[in-house]
This record gives sequence, C-alpha cells and structure tokens, in this order.
Amino acid sequence: MITQTLILIQCQDAVGLVSNISNVLAKHKLNIITMREYVDEEQNKFFVRVVCTGNVEESNGLYSHLKAVLPEKALIAINPSKRKLIAVLVTKEHHCLADILVRNYFDTLNAEVCAVIGNYDNLRDFAERFDIPYHYITHENKTKDAFEDEVAAQLKELKPDLIVLAKFMRILSPTFVGKFENKIINIHHSFLPAFIGANPYQQAHDRGVKIIGATAHFVTNDLDEGPIIVQNTKSIDHSYDANKMKIAGKEIEKAVLTRAIQLIVEDRVMLNGNKTIVFKA
Amino acid sequence: MITQTLILIQCQDAVGLVSNISNVLAKHKLNIITMREYVDEEQNKFFVRVVCTGNVEESNGLYSHLKAVLPEKALIAINPSKRKLIAVLVTKEHHCLADILVRNYFDTLNAEVCAVIGNYDNLRDFAERFDIPYHYITHENKTKDAFEDEVAAQLKELKPDLIVLAKFMRILSPTFVGKFENKIINIHHSFLPAFIGANPYQQAHDRGVKIIGATAHFVTNDLDEGPIIVQNTKSIDHSYDANKMKIAGKEIEKAVLTRAIQLIVEDRVMLNGNKTIVFKA
Amino acid sequence: MITQTLILIQCQDAVGLVSNISNVLAKHKLNIITMREYVDEEQNKFFVRVVCTGNVEESNGLYSHLKAVLPEKALIAINPSKRKLIAVLVTKEHHCLADILVRNYFDTLNAEVCAVIGNYDNLRDFAERFDIPYHYITHENKTKDAFEDEVAAQLKELKPDLIVLAKFMRILSPTFVGKFENKIINIHHSFLPAFIGANPYQQAHDRGVKIIGATAHFVTNDLDEGPIIVQNTKSIDHSYDANKMKIAGKEIEKAVLTRAIQLIVEDRVMLNGNKTIVFKA
Amino acid sequence: MITQTLILIQCQDAVGLVSNISNVLAKHKLNIITMREYVDEEQNKFFVRVVCTGNVEESNGLYSHLKAVLPEKALIAINPSKRKLIAVLVTKEHHCLADILVRNYFDTLNAEVCAVIGNYDNLRDFAERFDIPYHYITHENKTKDAFEDEVAAQLKELKPDLIVLAKFMRILSPTFVGKFENKIINIHHSFLPAFIGANPYQQAHDRGVKIIGATAHFVTNDLDEGPIIVQNTKSIDHSYDANKMKIAGKEIEKAVLTRAIQLIVEDRVMLNGNKTIVFKA
Repeated sequence: MITQTLILIQCQDAVGLVSNISNVLAKHKLNIITMREYVDEEQNKFFVRVVCTGNVEESNGLYSHLKAVLPEKALIAINPSKRKLIAVLVTKEHHCLADILVRNYFDTLNAEVCAVIGNYDNLRDFAERFDIPYHYITHENKTKDAFEDEVAAQLKELKPDLIVLAKFMRILSPTFVGKFENKIINIHHSFLPAFIGANPYQQAHDRGVKIIGATAHFVTNDLDEGPIIVQNTKSIDHSYDANKMKIAGKEIEKAVLTRAIQLIVEDRVMLNGNKTIVFKA
Repeated sequence: MITQTLILIQCQDAVGLVSNISNVLAKHKLNIITMREYVDEEQNKFFVRVVCTGNVEESNGLYSHLKAVLPEKALIAINPSKRKLIAVLVTKEHHCLADILVRNYFDTLNAEVCAVIGNYDNLRDFAERFDIPYHYITHENKTKDAFEDEVAAQLKELKPDLIVLAKFMRILSPTFVGKFENKIINIHHSFLPAFIGANPYQQAHDRGVKIIGATAHFVTNDLDEGPIIVQNTKSIDHSYDANKMKIAGKEIEKAVLTRAIQLIVEDRVMLNGNKTIVFKA
Repeated sequence: MITQTLILIQCQDAVGLVSNISNVLAKHKLNIITMREYVDEEQNKFFVRVVCTGNVEESNGLYSHLKAVLPEKALIAINPSKRKLIAVLVTKEHHCLADILVRNYFDTLNAEVCAVIGNYDNLRDFAERFDIPYHYITHENKTKDAFEDEVAAQLKELKPDLIVLAKFMRILSPTFVGKFENKIINIHHSFLPAFIGANPYQQAHDRGVKIIGATAHFVTNDLDEGPIIVQNTKSIDHSYDANKMKIAGKEIEKAVLTRAIQLIVEDRVMLNGNKTIVFKA
Repeated sequence: MITQTLILIQCQDAVGLVSNISNVLAKHKLNIITMREYVDEEQNKFFVRVVCTGNVEESNGLYSHLKAVLPEKALIAINPSKRKLIAVLVTKEHHCLADILVRNYFDTLNAEVCAVIGNYDNLRDFAERFDIPYHYITHENKTKDAFEDEVAAQLKELKPDLIVLAKFMRILSPTFVGKFENKIINIHHSFLPAFIGANPYQQAHDRGVKIIGATAHFVTNDLDEGPIIVQNTKSIDHSYDANKMKIAGKEIEKAVLTRAIQLIVEDRVMLNGNKTIVFKA
C-alpha cells in the first residue's frame, strides 16, 4: 500500500506560494496527488490542502523546509491526526447518534467513537449494544457550572479530537466552549441564520416556509453563530405541521452532521474567521 | 376537446364536505378528474381544488347549489379566471423579466403579459423586441407617494389579474399594496426568513452560509413577510463571494418566480392567513 | 385518540365514482381527511386512497356498500394491514439492513422486522445486537432450487407482509417470485433502466456519467424490470472511480429503499401493471 | 483590471509535474490563483487547469519553457480562446435556443452567438428579434449528404469555436462530425445511458420511472454515446404522462445545456477518451 502524506497550510498570501511549496515537496520526493488552494482576497490569506504519495516520516526536516519558504506566522500541519477520536454528546433524540454509531461499528467513519455522554440515560441501551461507553451526566439538581464541569472532566479524560453535539439540547457556556476550542461541532435543525434558537420547526411552520433545512457548525460563544460546515434543505408543502417537519428534518439533520464529521475527519475543513473553507474533493 | 371546469372552495371544516360537494357536481354531470383538499386543523378550515370535465356554463345554478351544501361564509370560485393578464414591474435586472417574456412570446405561460413598468428605462429595448408595451415611470425627483400614484394609475388602466415584481427594487407602501390586495407577488433573493431586506447575498457571504436561495411570496405590508409561494436553494462553497452568489442566485430567482407565476396562473395557490396552500399536482 | 380508517380502491373508471364513494363513507359516518385519486386515462382505470376518521369496525357492511356503487371487479381494501411484518434478505453489504434495523429498534418504521435471512453469516452479529433472529441460509454447495426452497420455507414460516431485498445479490427464479407475488421489493444500485444487471457502478464509470442513482422496485420475473417505487440520484464528477461511486451510492441506496418501505408500510403504493401509483402526501 | 492567463495541460503522469509547472510560472512572474489537477490512474494521465495573474503576452517563451519540463507529447494550451464564437443548430423546439439567445443579448454568456442554423424556418422570427442571422437549411427533398454539405459549408464560413445542437433532431453522419471534431455538443432529453435514441419521454413513461433527466454531451460517431459534460434529473410521479414529462424536461434540458456551454466557454472541460474532466470551481 502506498503511504500518503496530508499537509494543511494557511498563511498570508504572496506571489509564488504554490511554486515554493511544490518545490519543497519535490525535494522530499513527495509526489502531489491533489492540491486544493483558496485565496481569500478580502483578507489576503492563502489556504492549501495537499495530498502527496511518499512517506514523510522517512523525510527529515519537511516542516522547517516549508516554514522557510512561507511568510511569517504560517500555520503548517503535517498529517494533523491520522485517525481521530470522537466523543458524542446527546440528549434524548437518537437519529444522529444512531447514524454515527452504525458507521463506527462497520468502520466506515475513518475515525473512532470513544464514548457517548448523555444528559439523559435513555440512549444508554443503544450505545451499549455497540459496546460504546455511555456516561450519563444529568443536568438536574445542579448548577450549569457544576454540570459543565462534570462533562468537561469526562471529556478531559477521554481526550477526543472532536466533540460532536448530536442533538445535545443544552446551551454551553463560553467557559466550557473555551476549553475545547475549534473542537466542538453541533447540528442545528434549521438552515441558519433562519430560525436561530429554540423550536425552529415551530418557527418555520408559523412562517409558512416551503423548505426546511439543517446546519452543522462549529460551536463558538454565540448561539448558533459559529462557522458553518455543511447545510442542506428539503422541500416541503402546506401539509407539513411542525411535527411532520421535525420528522422529515431528522433525515436532513443526520445526513448533514455525518457529512460534517466525515469532512473534518478527512481534514478537509479549515477555519477562516467565522467561516469555513471546505475542500470537498 | 373536452371542456374542463375548475372550482376552488374554502370554508369552515365540517363532516361530509367532500360528499356534499361531489354530490352537487355529480348532479350537474361534472365528472371529477382531480380533487385536492386540505384541512387546516388548527384553524378548522377546509380548502379544496376540483377539476371536472363537463361544461359548467351549460349547467345552471352550480354556485347556489354548492353554497347550499356548504357552511356559512364559504368562498366559492368557479373558473376564477380563464387566462390571466400579467403586469411586470422591474428595476434594472433583466433575468426574471426575460424568462417571463420569452415564455409569453412562445405562449407557454398559460397567461398573457400586458405590459412592463420600469423605474429605469434600460429594459425597454428588450421588452419592445417582444412588442410588449414598456412604461417608464421614474422614481427620481418626486415623492414616494407621487411615484406610487403614477404606477397605480398605470396599473388601474392595465387591469392585470397579477402584478409581478420581477426584481423591482422599490419598497411599496401599504397604501399602494392595499389597492391591489393579494394580486402582487415578489421575488426575494434569499430563502426567507433568512436575510430579510437589502443585500441578502452580502449578508449571506458575511455569515459564511453553504446554501443560497430565493423566495417568491405575496406582497403584504410587512417587508418580505408575505405568504410564501415557492422557495428553492442551491449549494455553494467558500469560493463564492457576494458577486458570484448573486450570479448563481439569478438562476434560482428566475426559476422560483416563474414557478410561482405558473402555480398562480393555474389557480393552484390558495391563501390561508399568512401562509399559502399550493396544490401542486 | 381518533381512529382512522384507510381505504384503497381500484376499478374501471366511470362518471361519479368520487361522489358514489364519498356518499357511502358519509352514510357510515366516516369523515374524509385526505382523498387522493388517479385516473389512468390510457387504461381507463381509477385508483383512490382515502383516509377517514371514524371506526370502520363499528360500522357494518362498508365493504358491500362500496362494492354496490362501484363497477364490476373493483378491488377494495379496507385497512389492508395495520402494522406490517417485514423480512429482510441480505448478502454481505450492511448499509441498507442497518438503516432498517435502527429504525425498527427505535420504532419509527411503523412496521416490524421479524427476521433477517442472509446467504452469508457476516451480518448475524449486527442483527443479533438488536435481538432480531438471523437465519443463515448459504447458497453454496446446493442447487439454486434447493437454496430457494430453503429460503421460501423460512419465509412461509415467518409469514411477512413484505420481503425486502436489502442488497441481496442472488437472482431469484420465477418460481420463487411467484410464491410471494407483489410482496418482494429490491434496491438496485443504479437509476433504472440505466445499468441493468451486475456492476452498475463499473458500468457507470466506464460510461463517464455525471450522476449516479438508485432504484427501489417490486421484484417480478424480469431482472430489474419490476414496477419502480422510488428513485433518486446524486451528482458526481470525474474524480469518482467505481469504488468511490459505490461508497457514495450506498447513501442513496439506503435512503431510497427506506423511503420505499415507508411508502408501502403506509399503504401509499398501488400497482398499475408494470408501474406504481404512489400517493405521497 | 488585472490580466489573467489560463493554461490547460494534459500529459503522461510523472513525479514533480506540479512543481515543474509552478516553477516555470513563477519564473514568468505569473502568480497562481487556482490550479486544479486530476490524475487518471488507470490511464496514467495528468490533467491540469491553471489560472494565473500576470500577462503572458509580455512574457516570451512560456510555451517552450513549459514544454521543456513536461513529458513528451504533452498538450499545452495557453489562453485557448479568449471569447468563443458559437453557432446554434435547431429544429423546431425553442426552449434551449431562447435561453442561449437571451444570455447572448444581455452578454452574460462570456461568448458570442454568431448564427442560428435551422432545418425548419419557424424559429427565424425569434432569432431575428435579437438580430442574430438565421440560416434556414431544409433537409427535405435532398439526400442526407446534400443536407449535411450545406450545413457544413455554412459552418465553415461562420468558423465557430463551438457548435451547439440545441434540440437539433437530425442524426449527423460520421463524415459531418469528423469535420468538426470535439466542437459539437448536443442536449439529449434523458439521463444517458437510459433511453438512448428517439422518444425518450415515451420510453420513460412506458417504464414507469420516477425521475427524468437530461444530458449534455460531445457528439461523436456513436449516437448519444459521446463524452458526457453535464447531467441533471428531476423527480416525477405517476401523474406525468409522456407529454407532461416533455414539458417538465424542457426546464432541465435548457439548464443542462446552458451549463455545459458555460463550462466549455470558460475552458473548464477537458476530454479524456470517452469521458470529460470538468473543473467546476
């Protein structure tokens, strides 16, 4: 099997970056298979994702050789993490969790789910059927801080690369989010920025919309305002009440969240301020 | 050729309405081809659209016979308007207008465009190539009221069944809208309720969305808040700046607006408060 | 909770059918909630699906009263089966089976999976995690007839209402199919009639298509030629080799098959020769 | 305004190609904005499309410098054609032609339509409203060869870069096609390879499909077998007879054909045997 090396770079834009980078790679005998770049002209920033054949581990000094030909403060990640560890947080709804655990069981996720944390206990049976540890941490009868401290402590122990809020219905505090910067993603059950906050399907029904949607996004300190990774929509008609929208919406939600996980796991998502760059293929 | 009769009814819901209606039709020798009904359970309202074969004009008393078997205050429309007259209002952008005029020229619209009114003169040449009268009414150097009075006067003369705002970029006053109740539709260049108001593509770009969309809706007194008729979306990625979104968005806008016109022209759209019921097929 | 009655009728078309049917229903105090009809004008056939409130079981003679007002040889089904029993046949691929079993576990299928039959044993572990009986019937070292007799015997014992071929890769003989007429559905991994038969993704790759798809259909004696229930497609590009198509295709396959099951379970599918009538909503 | 240079290269695959190419570009002070490459591993072929800022015309020897660092027989195109000339061939249906001519009129095509050739005269009026020359060449009362000779003679005079069969319903002979190699594209009204040949909507109706589609492809000597550029589909249901399919299909056909034209005009399409490589964005 051929070894592949994945390189992610972001830096200030400059003339000759592709040439500089590809020269370094050629010297290290790394053959470029795909190279996707994006220049944010407003911010004058350059982003690139390169997949090469050839084993970087047998090749000394790649990082410093790249650093030498790039502008100051360039961020370089070489094989950022070969197989990511995922923790899933849930409340009561099962559809996103189930989709993730089935893919994990059949090993099509290209990552590994290490645990599920639920603020209710009702998804334990399902998780345990797949031999996935289920940590039940109730939010009841404790302060928000106390609840979040318990969840954070559990996560610190699990050391996941990615924390997936798979219909986790508690709003997380800035303190909590700050502990896991750029590592938490959420599925919101509307096409943001429409219907921020609670009960988006009821809001959608009241407005009489003809499409519903879902949004997977990184979690930041502003509710439902983090960088969007994936969105999708589905046409509906007047016969959909809020409940029928909710049922139809679950299919979109799980597809969108799973797609976002897949893109992150394959290191196809780069953050650019409050936006994402997604190198799909 | 077989004559068809179209009947639209809305009334309070009650037991036996379909039976009552179909009995009256059978007595009038009208054979039901399609019957689509909807019950709004929250409002306890019944809506139905019936297409029958058989000529209602040879059949006396259909209206009163239907009235007799329906709840009080039922609204009944028999062949509401066989071939509607459309006036199109534009500003500078051509894509929606062009789509409408081409269909009008080849007579696939099932309606007839009687005139174009523009608050700029730059689409005159295009309209006149299709022999469509173009009325240039500038909004410059006059009050909003004076401008709207001129437009309203022109429309009163044209007597259209439907007024289509095909990228008409002036906000219309309640007074104006009140003169043409339920007759004005607009195309908004976002999937409402996201990005109400001006520059939705710039708003969308700033938010980093992964889908853009368009909404055709009836115009009421609240900006971009009227009953939605048709919406659609398209996936985009990080490489779309506001301008590229705008270009891609035009394809959705014209498809959505044309679809809305088509649905109204075929009397498939019924108003239900701030929502629409759309009997697609 | 309100009791609902579902009625399916197909018969020769005639004037006044809707009126006749709705009269009978009104006399039985059944209030029509939705009524969807279709007239096949080429075949002069009438199909209708009616949902009413009111309990048919407290109402004698509905069947014979309907029969009396319909043309000869009309087929009438009243509450055809309240909760269907499903048997799933598999070979080695898991994605369709997993989707079905997860929905079954969370009881969102509106039906019940009674067993899985596999001609390999490798999906046993998954099925048994959900406490679903798994019957391993190998096709190896026996004639096709012998294999099919074993499967048929197992099915006769299980008495399912619906037999779902969820990536079951053996072609079934007319004899077998004849034993379970109109009860077997299959998922084919292409948008039929393109790419009938084996290796459709390789065929698709060789042809350089820009869309792939999947088709759920009833199984008849002609390979991949049975009545189509649901189809869907997905855009791809030149970077998809046959294997990447296969992976992407699985998402479409399971969505299409699950949708077909759902439609059948809700008695929304009627057969019309080699076509289906699907009353979606 | 910044000058851009577009470079297309195809050659045998080899180690270091991206590096070699980007070095040459850097030496010519051409800054890479986007670079999209594809390696066909089965054929061991490399394809790349590069957009750079910087004016190649002020820069001598780019072609030979690229040639020097690429494998033998590499094909290099620098600014293949800045603004392409398009000839459109039609029969009777207007929808594709109209879409093209409207875009041409408003100059959003990034190309220029030089003439329409029709084997009927009925689209003349429409073309002439846009001041586009219309050449009526009937196929009646002459041999196929004679007809094609006349069309070819007209095209030789027009010297288009691209010949668009916009619902041109005559099958062209290998002799004709050979004269305009890789320059002719066609819109076929099905999702190929389903329903090759005549009356695809009737074929689709007879098969009872639940999706219809359209395919834009290069024309080769095998009917409907040329490299596919763009395909799209639309969901339908049992209520679509062949005629309703045809009407709905027109919307897909024109969108697919216009998209294919746009991709070719922007030099985003490269031929790879019987397939296309399409660098979308």
